Amino acid sequence: MERNIGANIINDQCVFEVWAPEKEKIALHIVSPADEIFEMQKDVKGYFHICLPGSYTGCRYYYNLDGKDYPDPASFCQPDGVDGPSQLVDHRFEWTDDSWRNIPLSDYIIYELHIGTFTDEGTFEAAIERLDDLAALGVNAIEIMPVAQFPGSRNWGYDGVFPYAAQNSYGGYIGLKKLVNACHEKGIALILDVVYNHMGPEGNCLPMFAPYFTAKYRTPWGDAINYDEEYSDGVREYFCGNALYWLKYFHIDALRLDAIHQMYDFGALHFWEYLRGELDVFNLQTGKVRYLIAESDLNNPKVVKDIEGGGYGFNAQWLDDFHHALYVLIYPKGKDRYRDFGKIDQLAKAYTDGYVHSGQFVSFRKRKFGQPSVGLPGDRFIAFIQNHDQVGNTLKGDRLSNQVDLPQLKVAASALLLAPYIPMLFMGEEYAEDAPFTYFVDHKDPKLIEAIREGRMKEFAHENWQEGPADAKSYETFSRCKLQWETRNDGKHGELLDWYKTLIKLRKSHKALKNFDRQYTRVHIISDTVFILHRISKDETEELLAVFNLSGEEQKTVMLTQYNHFRLLLSSCESSDGGHFYPNIFNAPSISLPGYSVAVYTNCQSM
Amino acid sequence: MERNIGANIINDQCVFEVWAPEKEKIALHIVSPADEIFEMQKDVKGYFHICLPGSYTGCRYYYNLDGKDYPDPASFCQPDGVDGPSQLVDHRFEWTDDSWRNIPLSDYIIYELHIGTFTDEGTFEAAIERLDDLAALGVNAIEIMPVAQFPGSRNWGYDGVFPYAAQNSYGGYIGLKKLVNACHEKGIALILDVVYNHMGPEGNCLPMFAPYFTAKYRTPWGDAINYDEEYSDGVREYFCGNALYWLKYFHIDALRLDAIHQMYDFGALHFWEYLRGELDVFNLQTGKVRYLIAESDLNNPKVVKDIEGGGYGFNAQWLDDFHHALYVLIYPKGKDRYRDFGKIDQLAKAYTDGYVHSGQFVSFRKRKFGQPSVGLPGDRFIAFIQNHDQVGNTLKGDRLSNQVDLPQLKVAASALLLAPYIPMLFMGEEYAEDAPFTYFVDHKDPKLIEAIREGRMKEFAHENWQEGPADAKSYETFSRCKLQWETRNDGKHGELLDWYKTLIKLRKSHKALKNFDRQYTRVHIISDTVFILHRISKDETEELLAVFNLSGEEQKTVMLTQYNHFRLLLSSCESSDGGHFYPNIFNAPSISLPGYSVAVYTNCQSM
Repeated sequence: MERNIGANIINDQCVFEVWAPEKEKIALHIVSPADEIFEMQKDVKGYFHICLPGSYTGCRYYYNLDGKDYPDPASFCQPDGVDGPSQLVDHRFEWTDDSWRNIPLSDYIIYELHIGTFTDEGTFEAAIERLDDLAALGVNAIEIMPVAQFPGSRNWGYDGVFPYAAQNSYGGYIGLKKLVNACHEKGIALILDVVYNHMGPEGNCLPMFAPYFTAKYRTPWGDAINYDEEYSDGVREYFCGNALYWLKYFHIDALRLDAIHQMYDFGALHFWEYLRGELDVFNLQTGKVRYLIAESDLNNPKVVKDIEGGGYGFNAQWLDDFHHALYVLIYPKGKDRYRDFGKIDQLAKAYTDGYVHSGQFVSFRKRKFGQPSVGLPGDRFIAFIQNHDQVGNTLKGDRLSNQVDLPQLKVAASALLLAPYIPMLFMGEEYAEDAPFTYFVDHKDPKLIEAIREGRMKEFAHENWQEGPADAKSYETFSRCKLQWETRNDGKHGELLDWYKTLIKLRKSHKALKNFDRQYTRVHIISDTVFILHRISKDETEELLAVFNLSGEEQKTVMLTQYNHFRLLLSSCESSDGGHFYPNIFNAPSISLPGYSVAVYTNCQSM
Repeated sequence: MERNIGANIINDQCVFEVWAPEKEKIALHIVSPADEIFEMQKDVKGYFHICLPGSYTGCRYYYNLDGKDYPDPASFCQPDGVDGPSQLVDHRFEWTDDSWRNIPLSDYIIYELHIGTFTDEGTFEAAIERLDDLAALGVNAIEIMPVAQFPGSRNWGYDGVFPYAAQNSYGGYIGLKKLVNACHEKGIALILDVVYNHMGPEGNCLPMFAPYFTAKYRTPWGDAINYDEEYSDGVREYFCGNALYWLKYFHIDALRLDAIHQMYDFGALHFWEYLRGELDVFNLQTGKVRYLIAESDLNNPKVVKDIEGGGYGFNAQWLDDFHHALYVLIYPKGKDRYRDFGKIDQLAKAYTDGYVHSGQFVSFRKRKFGQPSVGLPGDRFIAFIQNHDQVGNTLKGDRLSNQVDLPQLKVAASALLLAPYIPMLFMGEEYAEDAPFTYFVDHKDPKLIEAIREGRMKEFAHENWQEGPADAKSYETFSRCKLQWETRNDGKHGELLDWYKTLIKLRKSHKALKNFDRQYTRVHIISDTVFILHRISKDETEELLAVFNLSGEEQKTVMLTQYNHFRLLLSSCESSDGGHFYPNIFNAPSISLPGYSVAVYTNCQSM
């Protein structure tokens, strides 16, 4: 794709390009350093162009349509926020990551974070200070929630309206580059969450320029993005160009596409296939590998199947079913939210197949849902026990650590990190952060704020609450969500952190845990609450057994005679004298499992 | 799929079943022979049932919802039209087609017809009288435009509102069975056109019963059919059940699904895949083969690719691009309607690949369109030079024979019948029927009639016309469309009819014309108007060359030295003394092509 959408410096010239196929005239309005107006030229594809001397670098500008000024839909920088002018920036940067090669996706240990609440400062640069902590934890990939310019200074990021501009209050494009560069220096990949299914409700100037939206499909946020109707070529170039922009100018290693089930495209070449194709070309041209990850609420295996096999070519997708299956077992009250889950055989299926709902009737959806994902390699899926949605889209923004105690947290962490999936932690999860993660916004429009307030009152009306959900607009709601790093080594926080480190280390070193081939992961269900996760290395020499007790009661006997050559590797409960409750299996064909516990065994002598 | 939607006789009992998942109560209201009310029982899937003695066979009934009577959405018979009661009918029939085996789809010579205008009487039974004529022409499959009960007695059929009820004014379910049975006796397959993308605007009672429609997607006719939202299971069963119903009770051989591009389904198991799976099971169970044919305006090869290869599994689809490419070359004024066509290399591509638009920008659509179909076997496509849409959706309902003269008609017929596709004729095409085929309806609602009138005024506003389009509601508009069988042997009518017969006979006998493998069809472009279609049999022993001159001018020299062992088989122009203009090639390395002509050569000595 050869386009230079936005305002670029090309051969020392400032080149402006904006798409507006149905407009006859557009003027470039430079507002600083001096006030100037230039008529632009339209090409046959509906792009307007103008080329100015390199001295305009750093200028601030609007596009003037029908007598009114608007920022650039493909603005790279909004120094004064969503309503101010755009700025032409110089994308040159002193990169020091020349030797960086992306990590194989199957080796990723992902850490999802929100820039605004990850540190007190809430900036890209402040996040750099914490990378050593993450590296020490064992994380090798961070996934940052969307950073496209949104209104005000506080937002989860899904209300962005300038997909090419890194949020000014986070430190803008320079800050983001510094973060990526620092990550790569420390061996950490960076996944960027991008939103190609809608634009935020405030500050969206796109409809003024072109038919970016279509009334043919409706999303929860209004008209859908126009991926398959008249003029969709320009829309596709805009979003595909955006994906390549982050890879090219920001050295981003992978993109996580938000809620792809709200991206409607019925054309012969789906936008996802088009994007996959363009990314493949870019990877080839640059000799590096970047990944596409989907958030998909479709349970459609085609999402992660190869293009050649009739799939859409995403490298991996989030596996919500694993979360739901595990969560309800760990925290039975969770059934209020996930009423179609709660059986141990569902968790077993989540481990062995992927989707739990693979065609059967789902009461929450009032229809049959999904198709089998059986046989798809485990590294096509990203699993988690918490993420911004599962924590944040609740009344109080409760983390799992606000709902259950340390034994359950250790069990949940083990269930995740020993799973045949790419694991993802949500910031603070590793040390049972006490701060909540709730919904917050910084919109200006009082009507919009009121609509959000009402929407949330309605959403949580069924819950047992007195005060109602926190005021999404208040600064306090936001600041209460900031991580309390200073607590992370204290008491149970520190104990959980150590447990996460131990598990991640085990995950990275045990051959059985690196095998994503389906036939080498087995689950033995012992009872309604007890199961054994059995992982086997590809050469079948090394095996790992994790025995889980998901009930609060001690479970007396579990027969494990077939594994009597296995020895205990670690367990989540220690006895009062510091020793393990669990014996090595060869000493005890029947073992006793304390409530909410896990014990890990292996046949591997070298560990 | 084990459902008995509608009112069936099962084990000599009258079993009523209707789906209404959100209703609490439904009563069966029998209105004749006697007036009776019965409460129905609801099952967990939202179906209401009641079982009455066999003596209720033939009774007329409504379903009473919220105190109001409605016909059965799955009514098998509407004896008094769309507003009257439904009737429970006995589907037993004296079939005499036990020995009938469907014809291989690749052997189909299809004839599309509209029951209401195919004969003076406009009934299924009257159509039987014409089957011998069709068989004599060489047709072995008729495709009848939709027969689902529509309002009034005149309609193309796309306004049907009872998909399970054969139109009463055509002769209802008994008439249709008689027609199918007669077809099979004469070796003719029957393809039924079914509409699963919308319901007609008048008499549609479905929304009263269940969420058959969704506002998530919009079609030209309003909300789309709900194939993927809450409660879609019942909708899918209703339409899939409809498909199986025609096959099972009416011995239909193939279904042509109308405008599948307006069937929106974003679920993991697309309705098309679901239908394909159910049809495969039914075919296996019965040991017979029936086909699924799509009308698709997507140019997406997945439509006709196998399920295993990531496709949707239709056996074939209509190939509009072939029509457009040929039509504009035969009738240059056609470019007003098909402005993206008109080049001979597009026709060549239509012959060798299938889709002409396979990814490039199409000005009519204001976007890039399609994906390559290269390599897909030719028998995945149905080609035509006329059909009900191309003829009828015009100002005056002009057939090609109203637009061009006999020489062009003979050339067009040859271009179609020698093509590596399944050919389809539109009723009357074979003898240059003079009657038009225009749009007609028989709605009652004056507002709807006015809206249709206004819509048509607008649609054709750009055309040069004085009287405006014919009044769709008037009986005369309809009756003027009836075929004039009595003219078919006169003058040019008879000459064209003979030409069609000759071509179809050739098509059935020449081995090269039975080869749908892509690599054996070649097109040699000689000039802007002259090309050679070259077909080769699979064993490469038999070849056929058709030399086309698509201009009105004589084309003097065409070098064909490489084919000098070929001999003339037939040509569309005869000289005044009855001899052919064309010499055998070996006598004349350069030949002279009269305006609008075609000559067919072969290397095959036996013909």
